[in-house]
Amino acid sequence: MIAATPNAVAAALPGAFAVLDLAGLAVFAASGALAAAARRQTLVTFAFFAAVTGTGGGTLRDLLIGAPVFWLQNARAIGVCLGVAVLVWFTPQRIWSPKALDWFDAVGLAAYAVYGAAKALRYGVPPLPAAVMGVVTACMGGVIRDVLAGEPSIILRPEIYVTAAALASVLFVGLALVGLPFWAAALVGAGAGFLLRAMAIARGLALPVYRG
Amino acid sequence: MIAATPNAVAAALPGAFAVLDLAGLAVFAASGALAAAARRQTLVTFAFFAAVTGTGGGTLRDLLIGAPVFWLQNARAIGVCLGVAVLVWFTPQRIWSPKALDWFDAVGLAAYAVYGAAKALRYGVPPLPAAVMGVVTACMGGVIRDVLAGEPSIILRPEIYVTAAALASVLFVGLALVGLPFWAAALVGAGAGFLLRAMAIARGLALPVYRG
Amino acid sequence: MIAATPNAVAAALPGAFAVLDLAGLAVFAASGALAAAARRQTLVTFAFFAAVTGTGGGTLRDLLIGAPVFWLQNARAIGVCLGVAVLVWFTPQRIWSPKALDWFDAVGLAAYAVYGAAKALRYGVPPLPAAVMGVVTACMGGVIRDVLAGEPSIILRPEIYVTAAALASVLFVGLALVGLPFWAAALVGAGAGFLLRAMAIARGLALPVYRG
Repeated sequence: MIAATPNAVAAALPGAFAVLDLAGLAVFAASGALAAAARRQTLVTFAFFAAVTGTGGGTLRDLLIGAPVFWLQNARAIGVCLGVAVLVWFTPQRIWSPKALDWFDAVGLAAYAVYGAAKALRYGVPPLPAAVMGVVTACMGGVIRDVLAGEPSIILRPEIYVTAAALASVLFVGLALVGLPFWAAALVGAGAGFLLRAMAIARGLALPVYRG
Repeated sequence: MIAATPNAVAAALPGAFAVLDLAGLAVFAASGALAAAARRQTLVTFAFFAAVTGTGGGTLRDLLIGAPVFWLQNARAIGVCLGVAVLVWFTPQRIWSPKALDWFDAVGLAAYAVYGAAKALRYGVPPLPAAVMGVVTACMGGVIRDVLAGEPSIILRPEIYVTAAALASVLFVGLALVGLPFWAAALVGAGAGFLLRAMAIARGLALPVYRG
Repeated sequence: MIAATPNAVAAALPGAFAVLDLAGLAVFAASGALAAAARRQTLVTFAFFAAVTGTGGGTLRDLLIGAPVFWLQNARAIGVCLGVAVLVWFTPQRIWSPKALDWFDAVGLAAYAVYGAAKALRYGVPPLPAAVMGVVTACMGGVIRDVLAGEPSIILRPEIYVTAAALASVLFVGLALVGLPFWAAALVGAGAGFLLRAMAIARGLALPVYRG
């Protein structure tokens, strides 16, 4: 039973969603700076990777849906990325344990997936491509980071990652369409995506691979 | 003798051209899913590669010419890519012989090159960049697939591939400009591009490499 | 003391800046064609790499700031890239010494950084993201070339490169904002960026790397 059209959903999008955007941004920027740290790079490369990883997914989303690119509207997003790069540079690396970062990244993944899908709905994108846009927002920053670093991308590993983003954005779009309040759909979607990713981190949950 | 301006050409673009778009989409999506199969990936990665390979070239084209990105307008394109990914996953791999796929890919290449150039003309792009846009549409999905898979891209092999796309789009743009009806220019362009690619598949036709 | 708003700066942007664009384009196109030559590629691949490297940074800039993509407006930019590819193909490779190319590239880097930042200001982008846009314009063509060629990108080397572009664009934006005439801000910015890059080429000047 469809209780709300995409447009009605879109009109209801609260401005407070922007906080999901900054949360995802900071976490992904940190994962970019840490990729640079693992390769013993310079501070400029830290900043480059922080910015590309932090803004990459959202940039692609904005270009695709025809929105003004978010980090060109003011200095905040770039400032956050540069700040995170400097922070990672000057703090001892042992405080950035890979496990801790995985958990932050899981929060960013779930938040970005829901935020990306919500922004796409607001720009009039139909439900299925809007859900895809959530995945793009959540995953493409990391994919671009891996490609630039010459690493096999996360999408080539059986570990559950893209799947968790897909669960978050599909659930959010679906629940919003059947009439759940936006905040509830967002909470359930992001929560479910985070839990699925958590099982991958904590227990190595993975998808079956193709056996031909 | 120029018998038609780009604008006149553009106005004549038949809506039926959209069929070329879906044909190219399905074939390229299959080549993406098969790249995932060759790497023993998960179904989610099948879908990711099918979508990126199928929509990549056309997405870049639409962003560059300022058109609304085609797969965000409705659920059809994404639906085709997901359907192809599931189909490749559930059918025995031996029915997807590399040779057979090469032939499908050749059809997609020729169709996409002509369709991309035609869409660029319709958006007011001058002839030379419009022809380039045909090459972008036909080739960039595969290039993005190769980069994400960590493979040497098709553009680094002497085998005739980009050249066939260039022949199709240049011939189409040239013939349309000298006044041939659109369908005739499209048929000749796509036919010539397909034949050239066919000679590369069947006989290993390749371009000479640089010897310094 | 801020003597000029970004908008006032933007209004003052002289059309003559376009010359910086063509200079950067030709030099970067040559570096793309030479990358193809070093890999013993075909003439079509020369053209592909020349075009991608020459136009990549500016294309990304135009997409991000919402400007019409520069090389789709007329045949000039594509013509320059194709011409450069043919020139590199037909001239003896020894005249393209890596050292000579580094110097040309340094000119392109400085020119593109200033031009990219200036164009972003003209499109109403705030100062900090506008400076980033200078770096994007100057560096991303080379990054895309390296990714397509399967090479470790310039951003992974401690050698000063991105830093020189950042110096040029930050200095230009800063000086323009405090009221310097555009041509003076551009000269000082591009000059400083070129000098810094020159020290990297001539003396191996590099940034310190992370030691964790």
